[in-house]
Amino acid sequence: MKYQAEMPRKLGIIAGGGALPGQVAAAARAAGRAVFILGLEGFADPAVVAPWPHEIRRLGAAGRIIAALRQHGCQDLVMIGPIRRPSLLDLRPDAEGAKLLARVGRAAFAGDDGLLAAVIRVLTEEGFRVIGAHEIIREVVAPAGVLTQTQPDAQAMSDIDRGVQVARMLGAADVGQGCVVQQGLVLAVEAIEGTDAMLLRAGALRRDGIGGVLVKLVKPSQDKRADLPTIGPDTVRNAAAAGLRGLAFEANATILAEREACLAAADAAGLFLLGLDPETLKGDCQ
Amino acid sequence: MKYQAEMPRKLGIIAGGGALPGQVAAAARAAGRAVFILGLEGFADPAVVAPWPHEIRRLGAAGRIIAALRQHGCQDLVMIGPIRRPSLLDLRPDAEGAKLLARVGRAAFAGDDGLLAAVIRVLTEEGFRVIGAHEIIREVVAPAGVLTQTQPDAQAMSDIDRGVQVARMLGAADVGQGCVVQQGLVLAVEAIEGTDAMLLRAGALRRDGIGGVLVKLVKPSQDKRADLPTIGPDTVRNAAAAGLRGLAFEANATILAEREACLAAADAAGLFLLGLDPETLKGDCQ
Repeated sequence: MKYQAEMPRKLGIIAGGGALPGQVAAAARAAGRAVFILGLEGFADPAVVAPWPHEIRRLGAAGRIIAALRQHGCQDLVMIGPIRRPSLLDLRPDAEGAKLLARVGRAAFAGDDGLLAAVIRVLTEEGFRVIGAHEIIREVVAPAGVLTQTQPDAQAMSDIDRGVQVARMLGAADVGQGCVVQQGLVLAVEAIEGTDAMLLRAGALRRDGIGGVLVKLVKPSQDKRADLPTIGPDTVRNAAAAGLRGLAFEANATILAEREACLAAADAAGLFLLGLDPETLKGDCQ
Repeated sequence: MKYQAEMPRKLGIIAGGGALPGQVAAAARAAGRAVFILGLEGFADPAVVAPWPHEIRRLGAAGRIIAALRQHGCQDLVMIGPIRRPSLLDLRPDAEGAKLLARVGRAAFAGDDGLLAAVIRVLTEEGFRVIGAHEIIREVVAPAGVLTQTQPDAQAMSDIDRGVQVARMLGAADVGQGCVVQQGLVLAVEAIEGTDAMLLRAGALRRDGIGGVLVKLVKPSQDKRADLPTIGPDTVRNAAAAGLRGLAFEANATILAEREACLAAADAAGLFLLGLDPETLKGDCQ
């Protein structure tokens, strides 16, 4: 009995888009865990989930999702990879899904944080333990400090300070995680359009002279098990195309997807990547 | 001497884009004031300023601007009409402009509120009295209450509440005045791209089901003499094209440019226009 209790707990991965669900699966298996991926239809990349035991289900089919996770013996759950927040019409909940939605309640209609916190609460009540992807794939979590050859100069640090102030406000209102600041001017603020769309806009709105910075922070009320800010090589390339000089993000709470490719893209374009110390960020808080 | 002191003070109008500078000029003249328009090059519409005594000057030519306003005997000043905030490179200040810029100081590099407050301070130090456009053209200032045939329903009021919360946060950070909310979800947040660009984006990001609302508020730190939120017929038409159901804005502090055309466009599209009572907004404040 003792040995059974020490068996690694089987990991269920509720997968949105991108390559991270596969990376989480690989890291969990390397650590001796069995894994099962529940790919969300329309978001999970079939090529990413194909190598692993998996099922594809609609987000609204919450009853089928929970049944599949139970049937495959998942004890721990990770939610990873972007999904587009559906309208209630898109959701078309199944019978069990409608009951769960009722339990999620008004939170489903509020900001993302409320929704995700409620989803985590419901999954926990169903007997699963929800953990953060960063607990499985620690090596993809961005550390503090400058990660690139290029260092931020005084103007960049000043723009980062302004960006941190704005991103913290946005986060407090549960609106978004990111903004672009150039020469003290807030060029763009991220709501649900996503970072890449915001970067495209910031490129069109940029002023002459010294380029700006992208700042992404975890929202203060955000559950790190649900929706960590993610930066990938495309983010870096889009930032470069928008005329930015670098990216600043919260260390220990940001996923650098394909880290080597991120650093290579940044170094090739002369951009800096700066992990901001969460303690310093807290100290700044007014 | 008594009668001279009671002569209406001559009004200088520092004009950005749109039709409002002409409306301010007409209202001032109707009230018995002499007027002079200083049109900002690249922003002021030549057709709007043409009927009035005017000069066109670069924004950076602050020395020439102040000299022209003095030479034409302007005592009161109004700043009206949108300008795109220039980069320092675009600005190319003249000799006097460079001195003024030094007096504006660090505020020029911060948010809009700081910059505009500093510009007002400098103009006041130069002997002008800066007044708000809404003091000249009271009839274009939006009153409280529903102005249209369509009334906001409970879902719209709930979206407006969320929008007010977000817009107040944005304003406190001196980022922008507006946002779009649909079914509790913040679709888009306005930075420097302007309301029309935000509405276009919100249209592309909208979810199925009941449409959203546009909320525009005065920033808490905003000097009402500098930059009142403005809604025109194009704003209404763009909101309709984005699938919105209405616009909510701060009463007594929002300019409804071409009011009749705004109301006609809203009624034609079945949108509501709602002036939010500033006292109620203050009461909401947390």
